[in-house]
Amino acid sequence: MKNNLFDRLKPKESKFFPLLRDMAEVIVTASDLIIDCVQVTNHDDAVTIYKKIKEQEHKGDRIQNEIFEELNDTFITPFDREDINSISSIRDNLTELIKRCSKSIRLYSPKTMPESAKLLASLVRESGQNILEGVEGLASLKKKSDEIRNCCNKLKEIESKADDIYEHFIIDLFENEKDAVEVIKLKDILHELERATDAAEMVGKIMRTIIIKYT
Amino acid sequence: MKNNLFDRLKPKESKFFPLLRDMAEVIVTASDLIIDCVQVTNHDDAVTIYKKIKEQEHKGDRIQNEIFEELNDTFITPFDREDINSISSIRDNLTELIKRCSKSIRLYSPKTMPESAKLLASLVRESGQNILEGVEGLASLKKKSDEIRNCCNKLKEIESKADDIYEHFIIDLFENEKDAVEVIKLKDILHELERATDAAEMVGKIMRTIIIKYT
Amino acid sequence: MKNNLFDRLKPKESKFFPLLRDMAEVIVTASDLIIDCVQVTNHDDAVTIYKKIKEQEHKGDRIQNEIFEELNDTFITPFDREDINSISSIRDNLTELIKRCSKSIRLYSPKTMPESAKLLASLVRESGQNILEGVEGLASLKKKSDEIRNCCNKLKEIESKADDIYEHFIIDLFENEKDAVEVIKLKDILHELERATDAAEMVGKIMRTIIIKYT
Repeated sequence: MKNNLFDRLKPKESKFFPLLRDMAEVIVTASDLIIDCVQVTNHDDAVTIYKKIKEQEHKGDRIQNEIFEELNDTFITPFDREDINSISSIRDNLTELIKRCSKSIRLYSPKTMPESAKLLASLVRESGQNILEGVEGLASLKKKSDEIRNCCNKLKEIESKADDIYEHFIIDLFENEKDAVEVIKLKDILHELERATDAAEMVGKIMRTIIIKYT
Repeated sequence: MKNNLFDRLKPKESKFFPLLRDMAEVIVTASDLIIDCVQVTNHDDAVTIYKKIKEQEHKGDRIQNEIFEELNDTFITPFDREDINSISSIRDNLTELIKRCSKSIRLYSPKTMPESAKLLASLVRESGQNILEGVEGLASLKKKSDEIRNCCNKLKEIESKADDIYEHFIIDLFENEKDAVEVIKLKDILHELERATDAAEMVGKIMRTIIIKYT
Repeated sequence: MKNNLFDRLKPKESKFFPLLRDMAEVIVTASDLIIDCVQVTNHDDAVTIYKKIKEQEHKGDRIQNEIFEELNDTFITPFDREDINSISSIRDNLTELIKRCSKSIRLYSPKTMPESAKLLASLVRESGQNILEGVEGLASLKKKSDEIRNCCNKLKEIESKADDIYEHFIIDLFENEKDAVEVIKLKDILHELERATDAAEMVGKIMRTIIIKYT
């Protein structure tokens, strides 16, 4: 399995960027699906969407493994191993949160899905798009640092918007939902969406660190 | 406390495997106890079992410390430090989940314990057994790689079974349990058991990585 | 941004200790605020305190970044990078828990705040004080190892007290609070306080490791 020393010394950086891009696309696809998921009207559709999100998660795992193999086989990497590791593990976390949200929807079948769930799902989708653009920029870091920084700023804004939406939702839920079981269900579902935007902002923080370190 | 350089260069790998085995046995013992715990009929028994599980957790911590000391004192380790670290930290996580589950049982005193809790506890126990067998195999990795792989597959199957059981339980709970406080209690307790099988599967994933890396 | 090699080789350890101290002071200030927070009687005060805690969190993030920059620019650090990293990341975790607790109070507006919440907040404060004293000791490790060990012991005692208080609170809550929505609110709020003392104990564990390693 191991390459010989000569192979390992040859810079092979170029593989990282396509892999990082693939990883970001997994996030985008999963967040497209979560938008559908918060709008399902029957249990079967929820099951179908959940399965598709799970497929994306597995795809993400495979890409992550390829990235790790690249890291093990390559001496010269474009960024510190730990930066690449951090981005990968947050991707993991982010798709995990999206999956959990869709699983909760499937299992809990809440009576109604509040408007805030749709807003949060759109914000998750918007985060995904900004991660994708930021990660694409990493391949030509010096030329694109302004664009990447812009994505990081947007990820921060989105997270802050999601925070506000989640807060208003929670205040409203605790004031107006008298069925405690529904409270449990909706609190879980929307919390997972809100945490997904947190995870996305974390990717932004790492990209910001990379800009500082390498430009 | 530090050995001299000569001592530190001498390969002392052999200590790792007994320590890893001890660690796996902690998991097995803790999971034996959790099977008892989901079947307790009075609070005093719940307290006794909780204490025994806590003892196992402390034993696990001590073994983990010994492993870390070995890692610090030894230049040549059988596997990458991070692999050994990962296994240790998941053990930590797994016994933590078992402990939390038994603590919740002790504190919440749910009115009845659903059959699914017993099924999940048995699956946690089965996971523990497979971790033990897998870890024993690591000591003679090349000869035993098929056996280890087999354990990893079983850990995956068990996790997937536990997932199904937990899902059916949650659907049933939300449909049929009208007492929201009982919903909170049982959801917490069974979730911890389900997450314990997730943690066990993670150990399987690491063992699989070790097979790929070192054979 | 990078210093030249000569600069990087010069020991600059002295910066770490003031930075670690600043970090510990963030914890102390945040825990002072959480004591106020569990005693608020109106929503506006809860909002004000939450904002102040968030400021402390941001201050903590800035200090953490400075510590990371120091680690990147310095070859010779007083302790292993991973020890410093661990302390930093637990600080992060601890202030995050304090922030979440105050956020929950702000959002949930529970009908009454149980006495246990005040007790737990005081214990968080006491933990913060012991972290500060312990961290101050690290700067003269050999002379101060007894004092540091003393702080670690106290952190352990505090965590154990917090555990007891939380347990009694939960038992009481599940027995006597008939409003399930209040159960959800208070369980969340007090759990975050209890976990904050867990995080503080973890800092103690790391300081203990540092004593063993370097004295």
